[in-house]
Amino acid sequence: MIKKERKRTYFLLLLYSKCDLVENLLNHIEFPSDLRQLKIEQLPQVCKELREFIIDESSRNPGHFGASLGTVELTVALHYAFNTPEDRIIWDVGHQAYGHKILTGRKNVFPTNRKFGGLSGFPNPQESEYDSFIAGHSSISISAAMGMALAAKSKGENRKIVAVIGDGALTGGEAFEALDYAGGSNADLLVILNDNDMAIDANVGGLHQYLVDVITSPFYNKFREKTWKASEKLSQFGPDFRDFFKKLGRGAKSLFFKESNLFESLGFRYFGPVDGHNVFQLTRTLQDIQNFSGPKILHICTQKGKGFKPAEEEQTEWHAPRKFDKETGEMIPLPDKDTIPPKYQEVFGETLLELAQKDERVMGITPAMATGCSMNILMKAMPERAFDVGIAEQHAVTMSAGMAKEGMIPFCNIYSTFMQRAYDQVIHDVAIQDLHVIFCLDRAGLVGADGVTHHGVFDIPFMRTIPNMIVCSPLNEVELRNMMFTAYSGKHPWVIRYPRGNGEYLKWRSELTLMKIGKAECLREGEKVAVLTIGSVGNTALKAIDKVCCETGKMAALYNMRWVKPIDKDIVKTVSEKFDTIITIEDGVLAGGFGSAVLEVLQETNFKGNVIRLGIKDEFVPHGTQQELYKLCGYDSENIENQIRISLNK
Amino acid sequence: MIKKERKRTYFLLLLYSKCDLVENLLNHIEFPSDLRQLKIEQLPQVCKELREFIIDESSRNPGHFGASLGTVELTVALHYAFNTPEDRIIWDVGHQAYGHKILTGRKNVFPTNRKFGGLSGFPNPQESEYDSFIAGHSSISISAAMGMALAAKSKGENRKIVAVIGDGALTGGEAFEALDYAGGSNADLLVILNDNDMAIDANVGGLHQYLVDVITSPFYNKFREKTWKASEKLSQFGPDFRDFFKKLGRGAKSLFFKESNLFESLGFRYFGPVDGHNVFQLTRTLQDIQNFSGPKILHICTQKGKGFKPAEEEQTEWHAPRKFDKETGEMIPLPDKDTIPPKYQEVFGETLLELAQKDERVMGITPAMATGCSMNILMKAMPERAFDVGIAEQHAVTMSAGMAKEGMIPFCNIYSTFMQRAYDQVIHDVAIQDLHVIFCLDRAGLVGADGVTHHGVFDIPFMRTIPNMIVCSPLNEVELRNMMFTAYSGKHPWVIRYPRGNGEYLKWRSELTLMKIGKAECLREGEKVAVLTIGSVGNTALKAIDKVCCETGKMAALYNMRWVKPIDKDIVKTVSEKFDTIITIEDGVLAGGFGSAVLEVLQETNFKGNVIRLGIKDEFVPHGTQQELYKLCGYDSENIENQIRISLNK
Repeated sequence: MIKKERKRTYFLLLLYSKCDLVENLLNHIEFPSDLRQLKIEQLPQVCKELREFIIDESSRNPGHFGASLGTVELTVALHYAFNTPEDRIIWDVGHQAYGHKILTGRKNVFPTNRKFGGLSGFPNPQESEYDSFIAGHSSISISAAMGMALAAKSKGENRKIVAVIGDGALTGGEAFEALDYAGGSNADLLVILNDNDMAIDANVGGLHQYLVDVITSPFYNKFREKTWKASEKLSQFGPDFRDFFKKLGRGAKSLFFKESNLFESLGFRYFGPVDGHNVFQLTRTLQDIQNFSGPKILHICTQKGKGFKPAEEEQTEWHAPRKFDKETGEMIPLPDKDTIPPKYQEVFGETLLELAQKDERVMGITPAMATGCSMNILMKAMPERAFDVGIAEQHAVTMSAGMAKEGMIPFCNIYSTFMQRAYDQVIHDVAIQDLHVIFCLDRAGLVGADGVTHHGVFDIPFMRTIPNMIVCSPLNEVELRNMMFTAYSGKHPWVIRYPRGNGEYLKWRSELTLMKIGKAECLREGEKVAVLTIGSVGNTALKAIDKVCCETGKMAALYNMRWVKPIDKDIVKTVSEKFDTIITIEDGVLAGGFGSAVLEVLQETNFKGNVIRLGIKDEFVPHGTQQELYKLCGYDSENIENQIRISLNK
Repeated sequence: MIKKERKRTYFLLLLYSKCDLVENLLNHIEFPSDLRQLKIEQLPQVCKELREFIIDESSRNPGHFGASLGTVELTVALHYAFNTPEDRIIWDVGHQAYGHKILTGRKNVFPTNRKFGGLSGFPNPQESEYDSFIAGHSSISISAAMGMALAAKSKGENRKIVAVIGDGALTGGEAFEALDYAGGSNADLLVILNDNDMAIDANVGGLHQYLVDVITSPFYNKFREKTWKASEKLSQFGPDFRDFFKKLGRGAKSLFFKESNLFESLGFRYFGPVDGHNVFQLTRTLQDIQNFSGPKILHICTQKGKGFKPAEEEQTEWHAPRKFDKETGEMIPLPDKDTIPPKYQEVFGETLLELAQKDERVMGITPAMATGCSMNILMKAMPERAFDVGIAEQHAVTMSAGMAKEGMIPFCNIYSTFMQRAYDQVIHDVAIQDLHVIFCLDRAGLVGADGVTHHGVFDIPFMRTIPNMIVCSPLNEVELRNMMFTAYSGKHPWVIRYPRGNGEYLKWRSELTLMKIGKAECLREGEKVAVLTIGSVGNTALKAIDKVCCETGKMAALYNMRWVKPIDKDIVKTVSEKFDTIITIEDGVLAGGFGSAVLEVLQETNFKGNVIRLGIKDEFVPHGTQQELYKLCGYDSENIENQIRISLNK
């Protein structure tokens, strides 16, 4: 097959070089069926236009960028070779699916990407039938594909099922569970391993090195060198020829690399590695192997940021860049650090470094979010004390437990939404043993543009139910520092949840101070109405109370509760005796949340007044700016003011 | 090394055959330091005595049996070759650790195993310093070992870290995350792959086939055949010699099997396979490889149930048998089915089969618990409709989601405690897409002898916070059937939680009837006090109410709430108007649980009475019988009666 492929690729290349370029092919593609009307030799132009479209849109409307540039050719080849949406393509994760969205009926609305009411930044079946499965969290595509393959078999349907998974996502344990199960079955599914040698941060682990070995084996390299030299003779036809050979060399490895490999060990038929930027070869390969039965894996090599120089060179920075000038590659400058408060993330990173400098037992652990959570600060200063374990939340938690068991003080930073992946490990490996692991739940609460799959809104209920666990949330970045210090100085497992975004103070680098565990703080004395908040939403409440007081002369009380667990029962009891109405506010789900914890305490009192709980009701929250979403969920400043006003006037 | 080893093994064998057997070596072993005083040639006798001890104890005091018989030689070899407890041994999972417990100071209290106040059935550091890490849930040992290795390195300690993981546990995704990370590191740790070709049920997946291939490669088999034939000539010295050669053949494979393998792909140094019942070879191998640096894996082959014929032959049945006659191998007979109500598990299994016969969209999925949850009934009747995916909860959930996405109706049965492992998949893959997956949470609530790691007590709070999710719990096995039928007939994701143990009725096979979603049932009209229950604890409450009424003439009302979500707000509001005291009862944690959900509704009413919530307070619950634990937690019949009595008399 592959020999024929090689000949054909030569032939098409010649054809292609002689074709007149038709302007604006992309304009004529609304759906993949339009794409499939084109000749295969027109696909490079589609890729070129699609790439430009993505660059153009992303320069104006920030989003995930690098991954989608890397999958332009794959996207075109998939929709050309497969009969979508009848055939199913499952992207894992959705970062890479912008091209897919643009080719599947959403080109014209693509400027609304990640905006409130607009397109989701990730595939979502509720948005399009071409999105076969949700794809916000990683490492799930092979499992979903396996289920779909079993369903198709049961229904006697002949559709093809394709899972596209990055080498970063492949390190997540579920991907292995699924490879193992699918490999042991005879299910008809195709896994495409999109190997760009990167998670969001640099890839780690034995698997990573294995994939590098596969691609860089001496025999393969020898062949590649030969094709490279041969290409020089053809360079008179233009620089594209040499580039073509470079790609062919890589792809042609599949001709020669016949050793049994890891995927074959698990029962998969392995193809590759193939150059993921050669749309001809990709398309032909996909057309050829799609009818082979059983579990198959196609290993393709791509470059994150492909086709946009700065993104090719600085892949982590361009994973999800700010707005940028597409001509110069310059991002809009960050605001001067001296004019706006720092991000919570930065405060976490700097404070962790301070603690690590203070005590050699302090360690940092992150599952693939070193840059996002700012653990890269510790990593740079003390590389032997900070560990990026890749996309592997479960391992991150248990490894932290292992460290703590031996007397270390691990700070395990995991985005709230991803902590859901290691819930059992938190209970079983950390809490039952009462180990001193400090979980810093970054991006807790509504996260904004990443939307429904990424909101960190369940952590208060799922953490506060765990015995031994201490759960707190800082009002601002100074409290974050002090909570980290207090947790470091304490015992037991801890959760510190804090939001995505900026803090409150320009001068945040206060001296580290011990806090009293389980003690709330009164921010405003008042009458009739007491507002009890957890976390940074307390700042919104503070402004709202002051504003209402300015307008009406009536002041509601405000308590920054600080601790969900142990909750300050004394304060709740005092409040229950002095006020008619208690308003609780939290940036998270109401069911079982902070307000519910307050109700549990009030049950023990004789409080006969009203309780109003503000937070997220029983529904999934879409994407938008954080402010838009707070408003949607009813705990933006305006609604908080209204609630206070109404309660004061009752 | 291995050549030398072979010579030495011959030598020791000769020695051993000439030794006089000393009676009761085990009697003189209190701690591993005593074991290490012995000569290596005495170890087979220790193994023999240890095995007999385990058989003897287990015949009288049921527990996990087969796995611990399989690891007798490994246990002895480990404690002989390593300097425990300074060196760390991490068992994964603890099923296999009975021998370890007996050799580490707990022989005399071993008859208390799994009993209230007695030894835990799993390793637990709170019980012994020899238990390096908790080990109730599987697939975590390599992660924990990795954390411990990093800690040791950081502290400059030279201790050895050993993780012992079964081939079943190896299919859990976290094990792969850890192999990947450890393989990419230069951490000094030893993983022992205890390959007994079994999870609790038969092993599945590509990895399983791979391990079989490794052990059965032609070259190896050829060698094995030769040694087998050679051994015939020596059989004059007794049957043990042939047995010895059988083992040696297997073990000697490590001499010849030099191909790169899956573990080497991930960066591990691979040794094996070695006969896990040859205590000499095991000990010498462990002594030799323990000083090699970097991540190492030793692959040993063992037989579950080794040394007890019936357990060798029927491994699933003898995984955790009832009491048995150790001479005849006969288990105490099960009670006649016509005299006691069936287990909930059996009702689940039979009902699933009925539904599957009714509708070809119905599928069953279980992660390695086909026998435990009775999905083996469907599996036997319709093998193409039921899927045991191995120890892989995450994959089980997402695969179910993939099926549901394509119009199937999957019943995904997972023990409540193991559902914690797939929490993110429930939220992300199932609930956000509002897919019709029916989660049957078996062994919800306090499970009894398995204890702290296995109680399924967190599911109400962690499930009821998820939008789109319907959460219910049956009063009895007839309701279980009807809830399954109602869930099957409905839409949305569902959770049906039910306990370990027997139901209420001899005649349970009622006609399947649709239930009204979110509607509670009044079981007793009453006055002053209303008792609101969820699940089978309602039966205890019913008896308590009737008993108190008999004694006092005062009747409390009883509502079987049936649905945690949507909760029956009408009933709660009605109750809030008619009664002074509301008592909620649940077999689960109080924080955020069912009672908390009732409080959330009461907040919307004008209820000024008392609420008493019975359930599990903020602490981990140990092991014991279910009745002992209900009492400990304050919701046994006696305490429920008392609460009702006190409230009625207020």
